[in-house]
Amino acid sequence: MKTFPALDKAIGCFGKLPGIGRRSAERLAMKLVGDRTGLLKDLIAALQGVAEQLVCCSRCGALTARDQDPCRYCADPTRDGAVLCVVEEPSDVLQIENAGGYRGRYHVLMGKLSPMQGMGTDRLRLDSLASRLKSEPIREVILALNSDVESEATAAMIRDLLAGRAVKVTRPAMGIPAGSGIAYSDAVTLARAIGGRQPF
Amino acid sequence: MKTFPALDKAIGCFGKLPGIGRRSAERLAMKLVGDRTGLLKDLIAALQGVAEQLVCCSRCGALTARDQDPCRYCADPTRDGAVLCVVEEPSDVLQIENAGGYRGRYHVLMGKLSPMQGMGTDRLRLDSLASRLKSEPIREVILALNSDVESEATAAMIRDLLAGRAVKVTRPAMGIPAGSGIAYSDAVTLARAIGGRQPF
Repeated sequence: MKTFPALDKAIGCFGKLPGIGRRSAERLAMKLVGDRTGLLKDLIAALQGVAEQLVCCSRCGALTARDQDPCRYCADPTRDGAVLCVVEEPSDVLQIENAGGYRGRYHVLMGKLSPMQGMGTDRLRLDSLASRLKSEPIREVILALNSDVESEATAAMIRDLLAGRAVKVTRPAMGIPAGSGIAYSDAVTLARAIGGRQPF
Repeated sequence: MKTFPALDKAIGCFGKLPGIGRRSAERLAMKLVGDRTGLLKDLIAALQGVAEQLVCCSRCGALTARDQDPCRYCADPTRDGAVLCVVEEPSDVLQIENAGGYRGRYHVLMGKLSPMQGMGTDRLRLDSLASRLKSEPIREVILALNSDVESEATAAMIRDLLAGRAVKVTRPAMGIPAGSGIAYSDAVTLARAIGGRQPF
């Protein structure tokens, strides 16, 4: 749809967000431009707040308030410094914290290996991972990466990097998701769930 | 999900957009906060551009650049000033212009009757519609409103307002949408399509 340059830019930005196609992006922009409740101004203010107030922790890479670096997870003395959970993105930390139960620390890679997109080992936070392994009493590294090909390659690369060090390398269990069942599981998930079966 | 106040505000704003639920809003905010290509800054700049550069035409209510009021449709002398298309939202004008073929002028109501949301006749741009009917050579008013109950009530109210004036009141044809067929049409659409059948 032909609109105005300013609106076209907004539509273009929305279209880069996950799950938003061209038509949805147009609808979002149209809603914002037509809204009479101040939603456009609220959204601008909220996004500016995100851009200004949130940074990545200089130690682990998790999101943190600009005035709280190192982040609350790095600074919390009650957390288990022997366990380090390695994730791809800062938002993954929020997901794991929201799930609850994990009381170790984090290390965010800021991406995954993806040579096609120019993401080589130099772009991931591997040097800081290595120096943390030297300076912190880490005994277990959990590779909580995704399960696509690039993430698997990244996990394998880190496992090889850590080979020979006195750290246990683990990854989260793969299996049938909560609320689902045998009938709804794809073959790979089911094979991994049965392969990784647990005492009952 | 518990995150940060700044991020929660952005999630709340996204959640007010059409078709975006709580989970989608979280995913959009997470994408923006984790993005390393400058998308967050680009989106802020684009939305600021929309907020700063676009206004509603003081005559017809369509979107226009701040430095072009009256808008291009009102200012265009080649447009037919005898036909006025009444729509609910500024974005509706863009949709109709994008479809092509219409060469009259517009009048945006800025909403529809909705007593439950406090939208009475005083909130719609009816006074300016009445004064345009006096000062402009309008002979036909097309009520291009939506087809929900509130829009139908709004159309009926305007039709009654215009009764006795020397203007023809029309509305867009309702019928089977392009690319669809009898088998895919609901009963109301089909009844209206047959009721409004055209010479072939």
